[in-house]
Amino acid sequence: MEFSSKLLENAVYEMSQLPGIGKRSALRLVLHLLKQPEAQTSRLSEALSELRSQIKFCKNCHNISDVEICEICANPARDISVVCVVEDIRDVMAIENTGQFKGLYHVLGGKISPVEGIGPQHLTIDSLLEKVRTGSIRELIFALSATMEGDTTNFYMYKKLQGEDITTSTLARGVPVGDELEYADEVTLGRSILNRIPFENSLKANS
Amino acid sequence: MEFSSKLLENAVYEMSQLPGIGKRSALRLVLHLLKQPEAQTSRLSEALSELRSQIKFCKNCHNISDVEICEICANPARDISVVCVVEDIRDVMAIENTGQFKGLYHVLGGKISPVEGIGPQHLTIDSLLEKVRTGSIRELIFALSATMEGDTTNFYMYKKLQGEDITTSTLARGVPVGDELEYADEVTLGRSILNRIPFENSLKANS
Repeated sequence: MEFSSKLLENAVYEMSQLPGIGKRSALRLVLHLLKQPEAQTSRLSEALSELRSQIKFCKNCHNISDVEICEICANPARDISVVCVVEDIRDVMAIENTGQFKGLYHVLGGKISPVEGIGPQHLTIDSLLEKVRTGSIRELIFALSATMEGDTTNFYMYKKLQGEDITTSTLARGVPVGDELEYADEVTLGRSILNRIPFENSLKANS
Repeated sequence: MEFSSKLLENAVYEMSQLPGIGKRSALRLVLHLLKQPEAQTSRLSEALSELRSQIKFCKNCHNISDVEICEICANPARDISVVCVVEDIRDVMAIENTGQFKGLYHVLGGKISPVEGIGPQHLTIDSLLEKVRTGSIRELIFALSATMEGDTTNFYMYKKLQGEDITTSTLARGVPVGDELEYADEVTLGRSILNRIPFENSLKANS
């Protein structure tokens, strides 16, 4: 693309560095901003740079937070003996939305991925081990994505935790609630048969 | 969505104001920026606010330009008697890419769209009429989108130009080069039959 303006070219280039935004989409977004009042661009630009420069992470769970200890960790009503290990803030938000979990979280900041050059040292795994050794954690729930990277990370943590006096569990995999059996993929369906549960338990979950 | 951080919520909100970017995508983009070096966010943020505050438009054709008169208008090799009327800079870039046009452009800044509240007064139509009356324009090529808004704008300009001593033309509509007839929509195919051209002309265009 040949631009008639360096300013425009620069803005389009920086916008196209975002994941999933190509040059054409970037140009569309930037031209949209040009048609809006100048205040909209200032607000976007300031919100991004403020977030990036002032971002804080909870000292306890490593979730994004504006204060030293996040709301969840600071809540005395939460069960500190159960900790759910997740990749990032989106997973915390998703699990909080279910209303089914009353424990604390531990945000890893990603998962082990040799392809992307992410090793255990880039995640908050050491801090998790430290917490397990010194704290009052009874159970760790591994709630990572059901991908190879997620499984690798789960296994790495599991190995590191050998010898510690805690229970580790992972999310149940199975046919999604409301789905027709015929549309479930065979791996999921196979796992849901292997890991079948007593019928009485499903009655309890529904009530 | 409930956020654990006002800074994050604010950045996601401003990002989601861009067209085609919902709350979820905005969160994904913002979290991506948080994982990148801080410099990337500063560059994006600065590029956007610099563009918005320092943006200039060519005094002649109203295209985005860093100088008073853009490169195309300032080029003595271009034919100033033929002016191609387009919606925005993307159309200028697209037509320049064809290498088939040696005249100048006039950028309207959009098209008449009552639904979006865009009337003739929001476009650079007055400046175009002024140019036609005082300048040396021989032919105007209407190169707007083939939509109802584009047709409305074409017709409005055509009416306003009644009595002026110039030729007006519009882009040929027809079956795209390289396309199979069976996949062409019926309106396009119908138009391409009505506006058929002498076979010799097509030989010239191909050579």
